[in-house]
Amino acid sequence: WFAKPTHPNSANNSGSNKHLTEFLDEMRSDQIREHLRKFTRLPHLAGTEQNLKYAEQIKKEWQEFGLDSVEMVPYDVLLSYPNKTQPNYISIVDHLGNEVFNTSLAEPVPEGYEGVSNIVPPYSAFSAKGQPEGDLVYVNYGRTEDFFQLEREMKINVTGKIVIVRYGKIFRGNKVKNAMLAGAKGIIMFSDPADYWATGVQVDPYPDGWNLPGGGAQRGNVLNLNGAGDPLTPGYPAKEYTYRFDLVEGVGLPKIPVHPIGFHDAIRLLENMGGQIPPNSWKGALNVSYRIGPGFTDDFKSQKVRMNIHTNNQVTRIYNVIGRIRGSLEPDRYVILGGHRDAWVFGGIDPMSGAAVVHETVRSAGRLLSKGWRPRRTIIFASWDAEEFGLLGSTEWAEDNAKLLQERAVAYINADSAIEGMYTLRVDCTPSLHTLVYDITKQIASPEEGEEGVSLYESWHKRDNWTNDRNAPRISKLGSGSDFEAYFIRLGIASGRARYTKNKKTEKYSSYPVYHSVYETFEIVDKFYDASFKRLRAVAQVRGALIFHLACSELLPLDVMEYADSLRKYAQSIAQLAQRHQDEMETYMVSFDSLFSAGENFTVAAKGFHERLQTVNRADSLQLRVMNDQLMYLERAFIDPLGLPGRPFYRHVIFAPSSHNKYAGESFPGIYDALFDIENSADPEKSWDEVKRQISIAAFTVHAAAMTLTPPA
Amino acid sequence: WFAKPTHPNSANNSGSNKHLTEFLDEMRSDQIREHLRKFTRLPHLAGTEQNLKYAEQIKKEWQEFGLDSVEMVPYDVLLSYPNKTQPNYISIVDHLGNEVFNTSLAEPVPEGYEGVSNIVPPYSAFSAKGQPEGDLVYVNYGRTEDFFQLEREMKINVTGKIVIVRYGKIFRGNKVKNAMLAGAKGIIMFSDPADYWATGVQVDPYPDGWNLPGGGAQRGNVLNLNGAGDPLTPGYPAKEYTYRFDLVEGVGLPKIPVHPIGFHDAIRLLENMGGQIPPNSWKGALNVSYRIGPGFTDDFKSQKVRMNIHTNNQVTRIYNVIGRIRGSLEPDRYVILGGHRDAWVFGGIDPMSGAAVVHETVRSAGRLLSKGWRPRRTIIFASWDAEEFGLLGSTEWAEDNAKLLQERAVAYINADSAIEGMYTLRVDCTPSLHTLVYDITKQIASPEEGEEGVSLYESWHKRDNWTNDRNAPRISKLGSGSDFEAYFIRLGIASGRARYTKNKKTEKYSSYPVYHSVYETFEIVDKFYDASFKRLRAVAQVRGALIFHLACSELLPLDVMEYADSLRKYAQSIAQLAQRHQDEMETYMVSFDSLFSAGENFTVAAKGFHERLQTVNRADSLQLRVMNDQLMYLERAFIDPLGLPGRPFYRHVIFAPSSHNKYAGESFPGIYDALFDIENSADPEKSWDEVKRQISIAAFTVHAAAMTLTPPA
Repeated sequence: WFAKPTHPNSANNSGSNKHLTEFLDEMRSDQIREHLRKFTRLPHLAGTEQNLKYAEQIKKEWQEFGLDSVEMVPYDVLLSYPNKTQPNYISIVDHLGNEVFNTSLAEPVPEGYEGVSNIVPPYSAFSAKGQPEGDLVYVNYGRTEDFFQLEREMKINVTGKIVIVRYGKIFRGNKVKNAMLAGAKGIIMFSDPADYWATGVQVDPYPDGWNLPGGGAQRGNVLNLNGAGDPLTPGYPAKEYTYRFDLVEGVGLPKIPVHPIGFHDAIRLLENMGGQIPPNSWKGALNVSYRIGPGFTDDFKSQKVRMNIHTNNQVTRIYNVIGRIRGSLEPDRYVILGGHRDAWVFGGIDPMSGAAVVHETVRSAGRLLSKGWRPRRTIIFASWDAEEFGLLGSTEWAEDNAKLLQERAVAYINADSAIEGMYTLRVDCTPSLHTLVYDITKQIASPEEGEEGVSLYESWHKRDNWTNDRNAPRISKLGSGSDFEAYFIRLGIASGRARYTKNKKTEKYSSYPVYHSVYETFEIVDKFYDASFKRLRAVAQVRGALIFHLACSELLPLDVMEYADSLRKYAQSIAQLAQRHQDEMETYMVSFDSLFSAGENFTVAAKGFHERLQTVNRADSLQLRVMNDQLMYLERAFIDPLGLPGRPFYRHVIFAPSSHNKYAGESFPGIYDALFDIENSADPEKSWDEVKRQISIAAFTVHAAAMTLTPPA
Repeated sequence: WFAKPTHPNSANNSGSNKHLTEFLDEMRSDQIREHLRKFTRLPHLAGTEQNLKYAEQIKKEWQEFGLDSVEMVPYDVLLSYPNKTQPNYISIVDHLGNEVFNTSLAEPVPEGYEGVSNIVPPYSAFSAKGQPEGDLVYVNYGRTEDFFQLEREMKINVTGKIVIVRYGKIFRGNKVKNAMLAGAKGIIMFSDPADYWATGVQVDPYPDGWNLPGGGAQRGNVLNLNGAGDPLTPGYPAKEYTYRFDLVEGVGLPKIPVHPIGFHDAIRLLENMGGQIPPNSWKGALNVSYRIGPGFTDDFKSQKVRMNIHTNNQVTRIYNVIGRIRGSLEPDRYVILGGHRDAWVFGGIDPMSGAAVVHETVRSAGRLLSKGWRPRRTIIFASWDAEEFGLLGSTEWAEDNAKLLQERAVAYINADSAIEGMYTLRVDCTPSLHTLVYDITKQIASPEEGEEGVSLYESWHKRDNWTNDRNAPRISKLGSGSDFEAYFIRLGIASGRARYTKNKKTEKYSSYPVYHSVYETFEIVDKFYDASFKRLRAVAQVRGALIFHLACSELLPLDVMEYADSLRKYAQSIAQLAQRHQDEMETYMVSFDSLFSAGENFTVAAKGFHERLQTVNRADSLQLRVMNDQLMYLERAFIDPLGLPGRPFYRHVIFAPSSHNKYAGESFPGIYDALFDIENSADPEKSWDEVKRQISIAAFTVHAAAMTLTPPA
């Protein structure tokens, strides 16, 4: 196609390039459109009849497409639903306790869906029940730094208050945790147009455009699971015989009521607030003052806010669909393409744009199979359930299959929403996949109009160059919050994800505006995001080519040198941050030398390995397997079975998320968390001790990873 | 030789049977004698110059024997030594505080060793420092049940008292823990002739026989590490850059002074004790009343006991010696033969009888190598340091190499003391090694006089039949307390050990009488335990044949059906025990059904696997590897990364030791521990909940292990 692959391991694909081309060419826009249409007609929340029906349909169709096996895998996990007879809402009450304003009980239903039942109203899944009443305090995004500013600079204590925060910047579960820690007795989250309204170009609210209507609101779970999966069965799959903790011992369940609202309702709660004038960075785009509170101003002082939350937790059966293509030569090596099926409502974007792409990938793979092709390694396709309730389906299956996955999984490619914008490709992956991603995007066509004959790589590169230091399309680290968590962060399986995204330089809103609202329909994709379905096809080809190469290449297409480069950069970056405390570091004798030296050691080992790769005798299947095992297990080497402090299921020493949103997206989370504590600690000696311990763990882990790349004996 | 091998995987050894015979025939009694002589001339306590010298000598000789590589691997771990200028001893003091009796400062030096320096006097390594003074209370063996009996039946509270207990039955560290939990401020341990004096036949004390002289005492560490290794660096190798906890945070360090004495000194402390008459089971074989106390009787009431303990903890460099033979076809598969080198004094039995056997194994393997032989897999020989201080050398190396071992280790064969009696073979191993052990002992000659032409298997079978149910020589479960712990219980590597032992039906003393005393010399082996060195040779052949088969067989000689049988038996056994509480089990709805059903499931999977083994195409090296990986990883499947409650490094769900000596030797320790708590709990509902949780974890683990045996795709 467009360019020569540059990957060192790529003399691999002798004979299979033809199959790859066939595989990618078979993927069709109209088919993807049809899959998306089919699976977005009805709401299919996790745990509902309809989501089981879709699972059965997917199973049936995957079988028809020709997979070797397809099975339904059920678990019984804790879900959370609004009470059907007692709706959730928020009131303003007068001094007599009369409700003088109530927030809406549902979003206005989009046209074409008027008769649809089972649309769950906006709610915060796993909210505590309760009817707290009190004064409102506005705390911006509800981040740690927002609460610090509130308490330390504005001198406002939220104990016994209800806080109201805007959605965005951090995961909503963390806002709830921060509110609880600050002592609030309830928390309201709203979508502010500053964060959920596209500007720049003229975009109408849905259905005339893809902006969020004022009556729309963002559903979502408000757990703090830290990778535990089902809150009642942490560490073990939620089977029938599995022991379940009591609700009070459940992992990550909030202890206070939580509720989400749209901006029409938010105006009514905010417009009469009193108290201090907010700093500019706290002001959103509503026509209100964004005063902090506590409580309302002047004439409205006697009014309070009351939350009415009746949401129920309930152990409920969920269903993953697992399909397999047996590997011809190494059936015990697994390449996984997994994404969720459950949706808050229709799931037009989240997740069915991704599920449609998986469906098309299975269809295309089935066509190849029928022509006699078979991958070297086993490919596993997964349709996960209950992602929206805390990555439950994917995590329970990972727990159920932990030993097999640890020993056999080559890579996990995530397939959540395939599109969140209309600008360019976005890839987040482990460093060892960088080179493969570049190679395959050079062989895939750009889906953009006017870019005929231009490769996806070139199109992406033009739109999003990495940095001044690196002339290549930007690839980001994997964060958290989708189904790859258990595979990457707990088990250490090389992982990646790809989707189409917005222009983040100009589009400042979080995610896409209608995210988790009823307005995520088939039509929003069909009319606005990808009318030609070429973008989704390009994403399908990227995800598909990843699994194809990983499953078919003789030598695994993982690049250890990229990992070496990344590790060195991350070490420099954390050391630089710590330099802010240079004096204290001298006092407490804190040094990053061991981490630097581990990074150098890793680089030497990676170079040596890389050189030996060139001399592998490909005719010797055992020699190939030995090298491939080293490649496969490299990611595993970064897992610390002891986990991060207090977070036993976040085990990836390099890429687990930091506990503090301030350092989200940084590597070496253990060190960042310890440094965060420095900045907020009364006992610097103890805190610096923890920094030293974390540096030592990081250095050891990188050294140990280097050892896995040296000759095995 | 004697009998046909019965193992299903044994069509394996095509062509290598000749090498095996050569390998075993090359092992010579006179050589083993010479190795033992050479490495027992001088005391070589861990952390001393002499133990480093022996390490260097072993390294040099292994290189000369022809290993592919030999390296010294240092760690800096916490050790503990008596203060050279302030000796440890125990006094009886009169009412003025004058010391009217002091225990001996050292054991009488055995003949031939009079000029030897650096004999460390008997002490309890890692004892707290201190000079507590108080009344003595005698608590039998210091087991949990002894303290319960003391407190509940005899109504004696040891708070502020010094307890005196006899050695035996349980690990000394547990006696110390029990004493601490009971509130004692010091603990004295003595060797009672009932437990450390051979009767039946007339045996003199050393040097005229192998009994313990009255002046001899048992050294030993008194930690409660639960597999943590170096107390200051749990979970990570104790390298130069490694973060170390403060001593107060160290794992398993006792908070009270501890000291060991021989029975001459014990008589003096016990002879005037007052208080209650002991139950018969508390009476040892000294000519004293074994009264319980507290304190002395009548005329001696005003006398107290004072401990004078000045032992120091000290971070000290230790050295493992690691030798390797690179595998020809699968260099990344490791078979490990490891045993410790450090000794309390000369180490005539513990550990040098084992180290001499390893040395001879290396010599013999080197001879084969020089003739062009090379094993299919890599063999690793290890001379561990600081086993006596808590399995430190082996555990730190396991921590250092955890990822490699987890991914690559086929088996670990332990090589501590090769002889502890003169009667027959003793083997403790994982169930999957049973069949191999039987096969190889059928091909090795009995070392016993008058048994020419009799196989070791027959000799052993005659002396120690398993049970009425099973007509085969007894094989026991692996316990804890030697260097296999980190490999077996933490990492889940199939492990075994073999040694020559006593007749446990007639010889009731614990271990062998001179255990950990200065009287463990070369001569005690040369004169009494194995004058011909044929027993040690037989042990060398067993250990050697194990590693040979494991390293050379095309198909790994691991028997999954034996694991299935064992699991079913263990499940029945724990369910039977629980039946004692049948009423409560009904009340709290506790059932073992899930565990039974998991055992059945495992059996089905094992049978299926076993059948597929018969049809493997041995010419297909990838197919072989896939099956072998399933065999290798089966043991790993029993590891729970979360560990047992409160014991993060005891991770083997089937074979980790129970926390309670009452259930030592039982399988499914999590369930036993929970049941123990039932028997001693004030909150039965909560305790039964924990039983249910542990049954659920056990059932899940067995199910997960079964999955590893099903076809991989």
